[in-house]
Amino acid sequence: MTDILTSARADLEADARVRADDRGHVFHSWSAQALIDPLPVAGGEGSTFWDYAGNSYLDFSSQLVNLNLGHQHPDLVEAIQRQAGRLSTIQPAMANDVRGQLARRITEVAGDGFEKVFFTNGGADANENAVRMARLVTGRRKVLSMYRSYHGNTSTAIALTGDPRRWPNEPADGSTAKFFGPYAYRSAFHSSSPEEEAQRALEHLEQTIILEGAATIAAIVIETIVGTNGVLVPPPGYLAGVRELCDRFGIVYIADEVMVGFGRVGEWFAFQAFDVQPDLITFAKGVNSGYVPLGGVVISDRIASHFDTVAFPGGLTYSGHPLACAAGVATFEVFERDGILERVRDLGSRVVEPRLREIASRHPSVGDVRGLGLFWAIELVSDRETREPLVPFNASGADAAPVAAVAAACKREGVWPFTHFNRVHVAPPLVITEDELVRGLDVIDHALTVADEHASH
Amino acid sequence: MTDILTSARADLEADARVRADDRGHVFHSWSAQALIDPLPVAGGEGSTFWDYAGNSYLDFSSQLVNLNLGHQHPDLVEAIQRQAGRLSTIQPAMANDVRGQLARRITEVAGDGFEKVFFTNGGADANENAVRMARLVTGRRKVLSMYRSYHGNTSTAIALTGDPRRWPNEPADGSTAKFFGPYAYRSAFHSSSPEEEAQRALEHLEQTIILEGAATIAAIVIETIVGTNGVLVPPPGYLAGVRELCDRFGIVYIADEVMVGFGRVGEWFAFQAFDVQPDLITFAKGVNSGYVPLGGVVISDRIASHFDTVAFPGGLTYSGHPLACAAGVATFEVFERDGILERVRDLGSRVVEPRLREIASRHPSVGDVRGLGLFWAIELVSDRETREPLVPFNASGADAAPVAAVAAACKREGVWPFTHFNRVHVAPPLVITEDELVRGLDVIDHALTVADEHASH
Repeated sequence: MTDILTSARADLEADARVRADDRGHVFHSWSAQALIDPLPVAGGEGSTFWDYAGNSYLDFSSQLVNLNLGHQHPDLVEAIQRQAGRLSTIQPAMANDVRGQLARRITEVAGDGFEKVFFTNGGADANENAVRMARLVTGRRKVLSMYRSYHGNTSTAIALTGDPRRWPNEPADGSTAKFFGPYAYRSAFHSSSPEEEAQRALEHLEQTIILEGAATIAAIVIETIVGTNGVLVPPPGYLAGVRELCDRFGIVYIADEVMVGFGRVGEWFAFQAFDVQPDLITFAKGVNSGYVPLGGVVISDRIASHFDTVAFPGGLTYSGHPLACAAGVATFEVFERDGILERVRDLGSRVVEPRLREIASRHPSVGDVRGLGLFWAIELVSDRETREPLVPFNASGADAAPVAAVAAACKREGVWPFTHFNRVHVAPPLVITEDELVRGLDVIDHALTVADEHASH
Repeated sequence: MTDILTSARADLEADARVRADDRGHVFHSWSAQALIDPLPVAGGEGSTFWDYAGNSYLDFSSQLVNLNLGHQHPDLVEAIQRQAGRLSTIQPAMANDVRGQLARRITEVAGDGFEKVFFTNGGADANENAVRMARLVTGRRKVLSMYRSYHGNTSTAIALTGDPRRWPNEPADGSTAKFFGPYAYRSAFHSSSPEEEAQRALEHLEQTIILEGAATIAAIVIETIVGTNGVLVPPPGYLAGVRELCDRFGIVYIADEVMVGFGRVGEWFAFQAFDVQPDLITFAKGVNSGYVPLGGVVISDRIASHFDTVAFPGGLTYSGHPLACAAGVATFEVFERDGILERVRDLGSRVVEPRLREIASRHPSVGDVRGLGLFWAIELVSDRETREPLVPFNASGADAAPVAAVAAACKREGVWPFTHFNRVHVAPPLVITEDELVRGLDVIDHALTVADEHASH
């Protein structure tokens, strides 16, 4: 009993120390610093993390859709510890065993026509460098990207971003233009079927290319499945149509796979579910579950060969970081040994999709559910007829309260959700057990009764 | 004997494997991919690294002036291994013990008026976010930076860069302008003393501010000591004058300390050697010797408080990465326990400076030596009277051959130098022993006879 009290007191003291250092000295991303109250996290394992106060949470966000192999995966931890003891880092101009191994493994799963990888520190600078390659290869400057997209926080990446995070940063780069992507539930094209949505979205993109000037456009950047901005799965034919437009107009097709690559939707890369081949693939997060910062660009042979005798004018001190690459190589071993891709496809289609469809049928606040693999969105509305969003676009403060209340209800029952605008996303670690998945979906089901109070019945 | 042969054969096979993966799949920074031959590095320890063929090199470059605590420092390795076993990562929205500890330690050494740290993945995005803060706080957009500078490879960072790496990336950002900094050996201002150089460089900066429009200028970004572009130590009074100009015109002073922070010149931050206080400090590399990718911005209270109730519109998944921060906390412990700052000042003034001055006195190819702490440049000329550079600005291929020959001579004698344009830099790990330092300088001394062949006697 004394031991328990001593331990509890130590935890409380640790909590206070962590809070004091954090509130005193850590400047947080995307936040008004005096208005936040970050949770001190004491530890994590698998699909669960916990604080110092004895609360544990089933992680349905994977920490910004990052920890594809969950918290503290023993194989990744061991790979990092081993590599730290061998060679933590070496400059990018050298050759290094794990750097080369990871590059080879990535090109092997990317498919024919991809032989080279340029490693970066994360997703933003992966997109920056992909755009740089496209501009140099085409001799053109403009880049098209979608409204409702996120591509990172450095200048070109945020300029390409089609969500409100771009607004305070404009004009970050004058050479970008936005188009509307397919979004069947809220069609910008007044379509009435996925086929029509795809066809009309392609007509719109073609018109945008023509009016922006095909000869001025270096690249089109698309999240293969739009992530934070809605888990928007492209309808059949859309990405193939983008490919055809890029070919016709000499434009580089960049697939941003930062959030959806490495198993999130049951494929190494999400584009592989859509029978299409981009020219450049950007990745980060899932490549090593973010255990060590890492991102990169997988480069098609056509583009890579451009830089055989012409210097590529980009680089960074930490490019191909051995510690990060070792965690990446271990990721491949775990994926293959444990059949992660198969497991994601199975759990997604057998457990998540039917349960979410059932949830949608019962809750008046649920307008739409959509997704693939272990990546889903529940879109909340105040009226299923008019599809009025439960909270306004880009809501904050009191306006956002109904969704904040759903998140709070989830947390009270031990599930940490990912919410964005009028949506709750389902993005647990890919190693989540079926029991945990069922329990988490039960909690979300229950929490949605909070949203129902704001919806027309 | 058989064991030795077996071991040698294994090393040769490893070398071949590493080369094959590297040449087949790794796309390298700043390079024409078919024209490079990266050295496979097998391991490192302290100030030395070695390849698979049995060659070892005294590292006088610190792997891009990154490994301030050298290769495989046992305290950093242990800190990484321990943190990997505790909690490799957690999203930036949470509070985390080592993240908060490192932020506190950094603000403690940054001095009065600095309480907050925004962590990034490296130096480039540190500068991106510092510029973002300056723009939002001032409501202005333009940023001034120096010719002969490097600030990173993402769009805003490369736009600020004043060396040829910017050229293929222009126009990366339309809101920048360049000015000339002090460089007594090649004065842009026809000065004849350091005092005159400082005064005239400040007049030039003031005129640039006035002509660019003070009310349009958000920030001035300066490497406290210009790094890759020449180890240009500012003359007395210059940085204080920059501070005064920034105050007078309401401009944010950003000190880029990515290369010179964390002990490189015997101070936590190099600006502390110049009795001046910037508004924002950017860092990376030395904060944890790059063992895990990490960078950041130390924010003055005035600027931090702007974002107390207004959201800061920037962020990244890996911000405040626990594994990276753990290596940072260990760095502080090593610096303090082992008296690293004192050791750098001692070795710099007692060993390096006198030896380089002596070298300069004997070699007709040496035009100038300059530096501070363990960060020095030897500037090579073909004629000491005219100061004609030994190789042209931005030389490559055959034009660069005389300096490439010096580098090759160093490598043949087991020293890996850092060369840039017409300079050889001295930037060993700060843990280098005095014997190693003396030996490395002897090798450079000898190698410079190769340069002398191209110089007027």
